[in-house]
Amino acid sequence: MLRVLERRKFPVDSLKALASARSVGKRVQFNGEEIPVEELRRDSFNGIDIALFSAGASRSREFVPAAVESGCVVVDNSSAFRMDPDVPLVVPEVNPEAIKEHKGIIANPNCSTIVMVVPVWPLYKAFGVERILVATYQAASGAGMRAMRELEEETRAVLEGRSFERTVIPHPYAFNLFPHNSDMNEEGYCEEEVKMCNETRKLFGDPKIRLSATCVRVPVLRAHSEAINIEFKQDVSPEQAYEILTDAPGCEVFEDREANRWAMPIDASGKWPVLVGRIRRDKSQPNTLDIWGVGDQLLKGSALNAVQIAEPWP
Amino acid sequence: MLRVLERRKFPVDSLKALASARSVGKRVQFNGEEIPVEELRRDSFNGIDIALFSAGASRSREFVPAAVESGCVVVDNSSAFRMDPDVPLVVPEVNPEAIKEHKGIIANPNCSTIVMVVPVWPLYKAFGVERILVATYQAASGAGMRAMRELEEETRAVLEGRSFERTVIPHPYAFNLFPHNSDMNEEGYCEEEVKMCNETRKLFGDPKIRLSATCVRVPVLRAHSEAINIEFKQDVSPEQAYEILTDAPGCEVFEDREANRWAMPIDASGKWPVLVGRIRRDKSQPNTLDIWGVGDQLLKGSALNAVQIAEPWP
Repeated sequence: MLRVLERRKFPVDSLKALASARSVGKRVQFNGEEIPVEELRRDSFNGIDIALFSAGASRSREFVPAAVESGCVVVDNSSAFRMDPDVPLVVPEVNPEAIKEHKGIIANPNCSTIVMVVPVWPLYKAFGVERILVATYQAASGAGMRAMRELEEETRAVLEGRSFERTVIPHPYAFNLFPHNSDMNEEGYCEEEVKMCNETRKLFGDPKIRLSATCVRVPVLRAHSEAINIEFKQDVSPEQAYEILTDAPGCEVFEDREANRWAMPIDASGKWPVLVGRIRRDKSQPNTLDIWGVGDQLLKGSALNAVQIAEPWP
Repeated sequence: MLRVLERRKFPVDSLKALASARSVGKRVQFNGEEIPVEELRRDSFNGIDIALFSAGASRSREFVPAAVESGCVVVDNSSAFRMDPDVPLVVPEVNPEAIKEHKGIIANPNCSTIVMVVPVWPLYKAFGVERILVATYQAASGAGMRAMRELEEETRAVLEGRSFERTVIPHPYAFNLFPHNSDMNEEGYCEEEVKMCNETRKLFGDPKIRLSATCVRVPVLRAHSEAINIEFKQDVSPEQAYEILTDAPGCEVFEDREANRWAMPIDASGKWPVLVGRIRRDKSQPNTLDIWGVGDQLLKGSALNAVQIAEPWP
């Protein structure tokens, strides 16, 4: 997030780095300065204009209200307030107008949702959508930095024939994959899948849009890939979709059809746009296209989107 | 294939191991004996009852006709004859009756097709299917032993910060993934996806079944996973689907719902059945279920299915 603020030349007078007491004494770098980490407390937000929260839902539930009371506008990366009807949920490429309706909190969507809606929204606007079906290929980074390191460490151990004790990821992960490990509801959807469906409905302002997701964690370090099947309200050719996505904010058409080369996670890592391509007609039914999207889970899926939300304020 | 013949106690009087001249001098183990590798020639098949071919389409095109002329029944693992109307394409759990229609050649389907049809066929028979949409998570083994080793070697190099020169896999593969690299047709489907669609139609004897596939290669060593979305001709509950699949040949319901634990590639590796589970209603439309299937690409996806096809003969 700090790197994104720097790269986007976000106008910052002063910056506070807040964390739990455990991190006090550490320092973070920002615009060439060393910022000491201070303890996050309810009174940390006096005189602060904007707070970017990215410490999980329970921490947000505990401290965001205090920040709002201090007059701070909060952009919250956690799931705590996303479905709260009083809290706008925003992807600036989709619903920037919702930002101004905030009452102190603006929620940043789930990373898999963002990677999907950035390319789907311009197509939705142009052609109307009946139904979306998505299968995800999600990276370790979605479970945090420690999950990325654990994937590397476990993989190293497997290659060296050593045993390995996992502490972050619940399942063997080296050269393996598993359905997303968030809690399953009684209908058999995991929380990640429910988020993708509900957050998309809220972002699009369309509570009736039909969509379903299957979320899978793959042994990739960073950047989520998604196979998105979209049934439109009318016939849409791949050419029409390419035309829309070529000009769509936050998207980059990334492919070399001649070379049979399509976006991969390492192409998207460190990049701002969601890479899209491999657009083709789904031959199994009319009015339906398949799209391949890959986005950096840490940037557009998280830090970049949060910073973009904050950008109109200063 | 040799290990499968052993494990299934396939009745073998004598066994020949045939390969290109390059491999002559090597030996393979079978039932405790050392079998010298002989050069594959057009006259290699005199006196042989059954030939199991697994050396790629061009080799099959070159030598299978000679084997058939020698009176041999060929089970061919390559794609060379799969869509030939004179050649039965067989998954014994799906269409065993097609075996007896052979004219010397029986084709073994593509591995991704097999992993899908083993669980889908019993549901198709019981309830009728309108449309199938599948997203695959395919292992390195589908591209051969050398691809598996290259995935390991490249990953080791990445972890050690060394550069690495790929010779088998066309794209960076360590902690990365890519849309299946088989040739794309003009409609934007890759060959692997076309195979899944066409072979399923032939196996089910239903040229009109509507289906589409998105195939992706993930950095998993062995066993393909598939997210399968099935629209039925009627309402089917997850309970009904579980009931059918619990008794379906070649399937094993593999999950621990309480523990949020579903089939993973390492669960399926070395196992015969396709592991299935995570059955849920697709909330985006009626009559539709999502199913998660994982099968050992080297066994049921290839060698086991070929040996099963051969089994009724002796």
